[in-house]
Amino acid sequence: MEHRIKQLSRWMKDHQVDVCFLTSPDNVFYLSGFLSEPHERLLGIAVFQDAEPFLVCPGMEVNDARNAGWKFEIIGHSDTDRPWELVNRAIQSRVESVHKAGIEKEHMNVIRYEEMVRLFPHAEFVSAEEKLRLLRLKKDDQELAKIREACELADFAIETGVQEIREGKTELEILAAIEYALKKKGVLEMSFSTMVLTGKNAASPHGTPGLTKVSKGDLVLFDLGVVVDGYCSDITRTVAFGDIGEEQKKIYQTVLDAQLEALKSIRPGTACSEVDLAARNKIASAGYGEFFPHRLGHGLGISVHEFPSITSENSLTIEEGMVFTVEPGIYVPGVAGVRIEDDVLVTKSGIEILTKYPKELVIV
Amino acid sequence: MEHRIKQLSRWMKDHQVDVCFLTSPDNVFYLSGFLSEPHERLLGIAVFQDAEPFLVCPGMEVNDARNAGWKFEIIGHSDTDRPWELVNRAIQSRVESVHKAGIEKEHMNVIRYEEMVRLFPHAEFVSAEEKLRLLRLKKDDQELAKIREACELADFAIETGVQEIREGKTELEILAAIEYALKKKGVLEMSFSTMVLTGKNAASPHGTPGLTKVSKGDLVLFDLGVVVDGYCSDITRTVAFGDIGEEQKKIYQTVLDAQLEALKSIRPGTACSEVDLAARNKIASAGYGEFFPHRLGHGLGISVHEFPSITSENSLTIEEGMVFTVEPGIYVPGVAGVRIEDDVLVTKSGIEILTKYPKELVIV
Repeated sequence: MEHRIKQLSRWMKDHQVDVCFLTSPDNVFYLSGFLSEPHERLLGIAVFQDAEPFLVCPGMEVNDARNAGWKFEIIGHSDTDRPWELVNRAIQSRVESVHKAGIEKEHMNVIRYEEMVRLFPHAEFVSAEEKLRLLRLKKDDQELAKIREACELADFAIETGVQEIREGKTELEILAAIEYALKKKGVLEMSFSTMVLTGKNAASPHGTPGLTKVSKGDLVLFDLGVVVDGYCSDITRTVAFGDIGEEQKKIYQTVLDAQLEALKSIRPGTACSEVDLAARNKIASAGYGEFFPHRLGHGLGISVHEFPSITSENSLTIEEGMVFTVEPGIYVPGVAGVRIEDDVLVTKSGIEILTKYPKELVIV
Repeated sequence: MEHRIKQLSRWMKDHQVDVCFLTSPDNVFYLSGFLSEPHERLLGIAVFQDAEPFLVCPGMEVNDARNAGWKFEIIGHSDTDRPWELVNRAIQSRVESVHKAGIEKEHMNVIRYEEMVRLFPHAEFVSAEEKLRLLRLKKDDQELAKIREACELADFAIETGVQEIREGKTELEILAAIEYALKKKGVLEMSFSTMVLTGKNAASPHGTPGLTKVSKGDLVLFDLGVVVDGYCSDITRTVAFGDIGEEQKKIYQTVLDAQLEALKSIRPGTACSEVDLAARNKIASAGYGEFFPHRLGHGLGISVHEFPSITSENSLTIEEGMVFTVEPGIYVPGVAGVRIEDDVLVTKSGIEILTKYPKELVIV
C-alpha cells in the first residue's frame, strides 16, 4: 500500500498537486487496504507530496481501518462532528497552502465538491482518476491471488449453471441455483447482476433474465462474476441445449475462433487495439461484423470495469501484470446470441488464462 | 406523470428556477415512468416553468422510454454524439436564458457539473433534490399497488427463510434459499443486500451474513426487501430457534411493545418525531435505551430509503398517503439482537400495515 501512495505522491510532485483527496471506496481500498462502503458518510484518503497521508472514516470503522493495515493517521468522525472541518485541519497541518487539489471528478458529487471549494477557494481542482486507473493497471501478487480465486469460483458457477439446464426451467431458476451454490461456498457478492439468457433473449444485446423457459434447441448464455476480498472475476460461456441449427453452430465457431485469435495476439508490447482488431477482423470476415457491437474487453480488478479498455482505438501498450477480459460476441436477432469471455493475465511472454471452463461447444 | 411535472414547474416558478435538469434514475423514473440505469451514459429529464419538458437518453433506449409512457420530446444520443450539446440546444429553444438551474447536488458528479457550468456560466445552481423528495412523499394508487406487491413478496421471503432454519445451516445458505425462492417467482432485484444474521451476529449493529451456523438457542434476524416494477419493500423479523433465554425473551417483547406503541401513534397530523419517541420511550423505560442506536424508520418507495425520516427530531407532519417503515431494535452485544420492521401506509384515520408476517415470537 505504501508503495502505491509513493507512486501517487511522485505524480503529484510532477504535476504540482498539493493534496489528493479521494473518496471512492475503490480507490480508498486500493491505497489503504480498507474496504468500506459508508454511503453518505464521509470516507476519504488524503495524499500529499511529502507529508504523511491520512484516512478519514466514520468513527465506528476506525478499528476496521486499522486492522486492514493502515499505518498512518485515522480521523474518525461521529454523526455530530463536522467531518470537513476535521479534514481541513488535517490538511492545513500538512501543507502551507493548496493551489491544486486532485479529486475524483467522476465519483465526487456536487455537495462534496462545494465543500472542497469552500475549504480551498483559490485552488484549481484536477481529476486524479486517470492516474489512479493507471496505477491500478498492473496487478501485484496479492491482487492476483484474489483474482485467481474469484476466477475459480466463476468457473464453478458456470459449471453449476450448465448442470441446472433442463427443459422448462426458467432463466431466473437457473440463475438462482448458481447463486445458491456460490453462497453455500461463502460468496457474499457477485461482480454484477448475474445473467442467464436463453434463446431470443441471448440474441438481444439488452436481454435481462426473467421467466423465459429454456427449451431444446436454445443457446443459453451465462455472464457472471464473483467478488473475492474486493477483487472481481467476469466470465461468459454460451452452451447449446440439445441440437442447435447450422447457423447457430457457425456463429458459435466464429466467436470461438475470434476469441482464440485475440488471445494469441496478447503479449507485452502489443497495443490494445491490435487485440480488439484480431477478433473483430475474424468476425467481420465471417460476415458478422455488424453483429459484434461492443468492445472486445475491459480491465478487471477492484472494479469489474477498469483499465485497460480493449477497443479498436486504444493505442495503449499491453504490459506484464495487466488483467483484462477477452469477450467477443455475435448477436443476430431471432437467430443466436453467443459470447465467450475469459479473464487473462499478461505474463512476460504471453498470457495466462485465469478462467478455465471449456470453450469447445458444450451440448447439454 | 404530467401531474408530477406540473408540481415541479410550480415550485420552479415560486423559486425562479428556469430549468431543472435531473439525472438520477430514481427521479427520472418518478417524473417519466421510464426506469433505466445507463451508467456513465447521459440520462436526464429537463423541466421548465412553462415550456414542455424533454428527456435525453441513449439512442437505443428511446423506444423503451416511449413505451414507458413519456409523451414529450425524447432526445436519443449515440456514443459518438455530444449529448451535452443536444441538451444545450433543447434548453436554449425553450427558455431565453438560465439564471437559476436546479440539479441534484447529491447525485450529480463534478464532471457533469462542470458541463452544466460551461453551458450556463452565469447561472446559480440550486439543489432540486429536497423538492423531489417532498413530491415523492405521498404515494398514489399506482405506486401503492406496486409497494403492496413488493410487501407480499417480502412476507413470503420471511416465511421461506423461517422454514429453512435447521441446526447447522449457515446464514448464507438460508439467505440463498430465500433468494432462490424469490427468483423462482420472477423477482429480479432485492431492495438491498439481504440480511440473515444469527446469534452474536444479530446482536452486532454491523453484522454481515456469512458462514456462521444457526444453532439452538439463537435468535435469527431477517432483514430484506423486494423490488417490484421499481418500488421497494423492507421487512425485518426476528425468530427464535429452539429455547431462548429469559433476557432474550424480554428484549423481544420490549421491541414488539415498542413497535406496537409506535404504530398506534401514527395518523395524519402526528409529527414524525412523536412516532419515533413512542417507541424510543418504551424501550428506554425498559432499560434498553442505549441499545437502540438508530432512527425508528424511513420512507419507502422508488428508493428503499426516502422521505420521511422517522427520527426523534423530525417535526414533519405525517399525512395520508405516506409510506414508511417502523423498525425499532435492541442490540445487546453477546446477548441478543432483535428488530421488528413493518411497512405502513398512512390512511385517513390511521394506518394500514402492508407487511403481514406474524410478530408474536415465532419459535422454530
